[in-house]
Amino acid sequence: MVNETQHTCSASSSSKSDGGSSSGSESSKDSSRCSTPVLDADRHERLREKMRRRQDSGDKWFSLEFFPPRTANAAVNLISRFDHMGAGGPLFIDVTWHPAGDPGSDKETSSMIIANTAVNYCGLETILHMTCCNQTKDDITGHLQKAKRLGLKNIMALRGDPIGEEWEEEVDGFNYAVDLVKHIRNEFDDYFDICVAGYPKGHPDAESYEADLRHLKEKVCAGADFIITQLFFRDCKAIGITCPIIPGIFPIQGYHSLRQLVKLSKLEVPQEIKDVIEPIKDNDAAIRNYGVELAVSMCRELLDSGMVHGLHFYTLNREVATTEVLKRLGIWKEDPRRPLPWAVSAHPKRRVEDVRPIFWASRPKSYIYRTQEWDDFPNGRWGNSSSPAFGELKDYYLFYLKSKSPREELLKMWGEELTGEESVFEVFTCYITGEPNKNGHKVTCMPWNDDPLATETNLLKEQLEKVNRRGILTINSQPNINGKPSTDPIVGWGPSGGYVFQKAYLEFFTSSEIVTALLKVLKKYELRVNYHIVNVKGQNITNAPDLQPNAVTWGIFPGREIIQPTVVDPVSFLSWKDEAFALWIEQWAKLYEEESPSRMIIQYIHDNYYLVNLVDNDFPLENCLWQVVDDTFELLN
Amino acid sequence: MVNETQHTCSASSSSKSDGGSSSGSESSKDSSRCSTPVLDADRHERLREKMRRRQDSGDKWFSLEFFPPRTANAAVNLISRFDHMGAGGPLFIDVTWHPAGDPGSDKETSSMIIANTAVNYCGLETILHMTCCNQTKDDITGHLQKAKRLGLKNIMALRGDPIGEEWEEEVDGFNYAVDLVKHIRNEFDDYFDICVAGYPKGHPDAESYEADLRHLKEKVCAGADFIITQLFFRDCKAIGITCPIIPGIFPIQGYHSLRQLVKLSKLEVPQEIKDVIEPIKDNDAAIRNYGVELAVSMCRELLDSGMVHGLHFYTLNREVATTEVLKRLGIWKEDPRRPLPWAVSAHPKRRVEDVRPIFWASRPKSYIYRTQEWDDFPNGRWGNSSSPAFGELKDYYLFYLKSKSPREELLKMWGEELTGEESVFEVFTCYITGEPNKNGHKVTCMPWNDDPLATETNLLKEQLEKVNRRGILTINSQPNINGKPSTDPIVGWGPSGGYVFQKAYLEFFTSSEIVTALLKVLKKYELRVNYHIVNVKGQNITNAPDLQPNAVTWGIFPGREIIQPTVVDPVSFLSWKDEAFALWIEQWAKLYEEESPSRMIIQYIHDNYYLVNLVDNDFPLENCLWQVVDDTFELLN
Repeated sequence: MVNETQHTCSASSSSKSDGGSSSGSESSKDSSRCSTPVLDADRHERLREKMRRRQDSGDKWFSLEFFPPRTANAAVNLISRFDHMGAGGPLFIDVTWHPAGDPGSDKETSSMIIANTAVNYCGLETILHMTCCNQTKDDITGHLQKAKRLGLKNIMALRGDPIGEEWEEEVDGFNYAVDLVKHIRNEFDDYFDICVAGYPKGHPDAESYEADLRHLKEKVCAGADFIITQLFFRDCKAIGITCPIIPGIFPIQGYHSLRQLVKLSKLEVPQEIKDVIEPIKDNDAAIRNYGVELAVSMCRELLDSGMVHGLHFYTLNREVATTEVLKRLGIWKEDPRRPLPWAVSAHPKRRVEDVRPIFWASRPKSYIYRTQEWDDFPNGRWGNSSSPAFGELKDYYLFYLKSKSPREELLKMWGEELTGEESVFEVFTCYITGEPNKNGHKVTCMPWNDDPLATETNLLKEQLEKVNRRGILTINSQPNINGKPSTDPIVGWGPSGGYVFQKAYLEFFTSSEIVTALLKVLKKYELRVNYHIVNVKGQNITNAPDLQPNAVTWGIFPGREIIQPTVVDPVSFLSWKDEAFALWIEQWAKLYEEESPSRMIIQYIHDNYYLVNLVDNDFPLENCLWQVVDDTFELLN
Repeated sequence: MVNETQHTCSASSSSKSDGGSSSGSESSKDSSRCSTPVLDADRHERLREKMRRRQDSGDKWFSLEFFPPRTANAAVNLISRFDHMGAGGPLFIDVTWHPAGDPGSDKETSSMIIANTAVNYCGLETILHMTCCNQTKDDITGHLQKAKRLGLKNIMALRGDPIGEEWEEEVDGFNYAVDLVKHIRNEFDDYFDICVAGYPKGHPDAESYEADLRHLKEKVCAGADFIITQLFFRDCKAIGITCPIIPGIFPIQGYHSLRQLVKLSKLEVPQEIKDVIEPIKDNDAAIRNYGVELAVSMCRELLDSGMVHGLHFYTLNREVATTEVLKRLGIWKEDPRRPLPWAVSAHPKRRVEDVRPIFWASRPKSYIYRTQEWDDFPNGRWGNSSSPAFGELKDYYLFYLKSKSPREELLKMWGEELTGEESVFEVFTCYITGEPNKNGHKVTCMPWNDDPLATETNLLKEQLEKVNRRGILTINSQPNINGKPSTDPIVGWGPSGGYVFQKAYLEFFTSSEIVTALLKVLKKYELRVNYHIVNVKGQNITNAPDLQPNAVTWGIFPGREIIQPTVVDPVSFLSWKDEAFALWIEQWAKLYEEESPSRMIIQYIHDNYYLVNLVDNDFPLENCLWQVVDDTFELLN
């Protein structure tokens, strides 16, 4: 029990409410009549509750530490690393705090913004480090308030290294991490989960191992929830520390980074390790292999001891070594089962969110960005959406919205020079088929989707190829599904034991000539097929009844209410339309010189094409949307 | 257009907002993110909008007039008449107002309470008559405020007959219906839809036909929305009245009631009718047949004229003649398609309600009664129901909750004398099979269900019979349904073109011995079967995750969000449990003398049995609940 700690601390400063048993917890109650069922307990529990649940169930876990990037490009890469390494299922990640690097600012390289991005856009449980040494109370309170505002829920409370060689205790100042812990509990009550650090052989500045152990206990008594450290479990127990203690693992990834660490931490590298490393210090691969071996055997020992439930990895922002260690330990768990069909955000105010328009399926970060100002999020039902306003998307170059591919690569994929609309059709077709274009380059992303085709979309590949070749330029689609198990590796989502359903969906750009024929054909499919057709000027043709949303993905689960995570919403479609048309220009046309023929071709499509979406309401029957398209081409011939 | 009226009236007193076209109407917009999709436009439109929609679509309609009952028993019968005649699809019903009968009181025989019951408990669009003659402004305002509070939205504004022979106009008093119309519009703005009366040959008190026509126009100009009358369509048009005019039809049902009407209305019966009636005045059946013939031919003529869109029937609280006329005209439409699986209420505050716990499936009026104090109603999702409090059901003898059968009949059905638990099993079994009991009486109702077995439950008849015989005393059940068309005559509901689904459900009382075995068996079905088992003391055993509701009925419709109208909610089940157990005593045990063996048998069951509900979550597979019961009996043997 986490809070048994309290029993052994003389001052019971914190007003922590015990999360209680998983079923009766206060935090799972919601007085709203439209509350979200707890589809995914992870979204509703705080970190210390998750940690306890994993400990109780005997499930081993891991966490990953990153430092803030130094450049804007590094920030783009780090976010993509968060996405990759997030897939392995860390219990949390943490972002370090470097007082010299403006860590609380709004820069894309600040600790604050990186941690916020991890929570909000990557859906990761995140701990923000914070140091207190040499800072005013107001500064610290300001940082904590900002962290709270941005949706951060966990703080790693540290003293930090004093600036300059000499350091003197300030009276009533923040001299030790324990002062920061006390301050957080005083000013923010139980809002944050607090982590503190223990040191393997005592803190380098501390008088003795025993003194450091006492300091650690002080931090826990002041309100810390868990400890990241490397050692002395037995000693902690002896002194009465019973909160979770997480060993920090540093897989040796290279000679240079090891020396750096030694310098900073004032740790000594054991002689037997030195003996292995020194002779191979110029062979990076050999050192890394050795580092992985060493880490794996150390972690195995820790896990086998029965005292360790989770492992904390200092990644140094690198993927390979840590991922390999985790995979070899068998605790890297790429769970293909998604809690919802789209990527959830971990921002506390989005905890209840379980419905989104399908349009942003491939651009979840843009959706989160455009709805960041909302005070509440739809759950259970989208409702009539005449009220919610989508923010405008102007900042296409925000580091977390930006394409991972540089301009030169995009030109290779989408064509250095376009010769007509047909060459645009060709780009779409290559993206669908996965075949290289005529210059031998594979098209692995599009302005509307920065990733290769989803596995689910692959089910429609053949049909999609056919229609894209003829100028139905698809940007989003899903097959109809009539009750597949929720554990289906391709279309499944949500808890096991359920059934998932979909209505067939197709969204594409196409010429006004095709739209005219399509509209004639759609008359035959009235009621069965709902459509929305709009051009960049906002001319809008639809047969949706009363501007009601159409649920196109839903799931039925044991002992739960119906979950319907995606809808085709007529009102949101007009906000999506602005973004979808703008991407032609922002991401594609602007690759070319102004007035160049290539740019004018894209501009022409942007100005004259229509954006169309079609839903086949008869999900138990064979998808009729391909027939609709065939009928349209037949009418045109 | 209803409101063209305004153009021809000199004083435009009303601030009516035009309902607009059916799709863009303000009233269908709702800023709530959890708003109900407009599953059933009828629940969202006001009466004048419905009338216009029916007129525009060329759909002929009818309405039914009733007077308040004179005794409590008559009130029970009238409510059951509302349910019967409501099935034929009247556009509205109206309840007359008799100043001598305390029409605005809280008595079960008052016009106010009868109209409220029709709206709230029978789900009928209702017009409350109100007269103004010889009443103070405060009285009238009080009545209108009460009507509004009770959920009434429509008033028939009448002068009423002056009390006593002599009558003089009061200065600034309510002398004519037009004064009441003005008052309603002044004090309540556009809240009420207002109907006024026209008289076939002018009001009996009016100077002339022309004067009366002018008075009628004054009423419309003061803000009335439509007129009920018998004649002069052409004359109304000529004088510039363009609002809907509804002819009132009085099917002659007997010699006596015709004479009564003549006396009251000061109308003359045309000679050709007198000629037919006088010779057969002692033959009730002959007069009624003639009355039906006459009404049918008159109605046909009116409808064929093209000027009439709806017909208003003075029922005199009787069913047969009016129903026959309506059926012969082909405008009685028993639509087996329900908007939702349960009977909706027409109270405005329940307009959005589209989720209820399944427990009250056979007792919708009790459910409405126990939730009457709620400020908002679940829609889209039930949510975590820890907050909403169910009112206690103490008034089992409220006229609209009471059994339609008198005590003697109930004794015949449920046994003059019980000999043991087995004889109770026998009653349940006879109710299921429809076979007479050993004394030759059919069991057509039970304490938990005042109507014979639902068609849908018939699907399970054979299995239900088997288990009831053995002491699994079922009170509620539904088969699993995996996507039947929403137009299915037995299990369908909601708009056409959709698909409906159900999880199999079984609810029953049974002994603690059977419960012990059942719990062992249920371990084998963990995850697949959710259960709640409770006794009268509230001992509660369940495997529901986190007290979450389980959706057991849902529908998927073209262009709409998912509708999930019934849930098994763990928290509400405990409120239902109180009612379900109490019905043993209130409805059954109390039929017998205190201390009698029969009463003690029922009391024993009440004190010792458990109430159990089971849900099979695997709706696409064969219902496993019968297997669960079989396994239980096998374990017991």
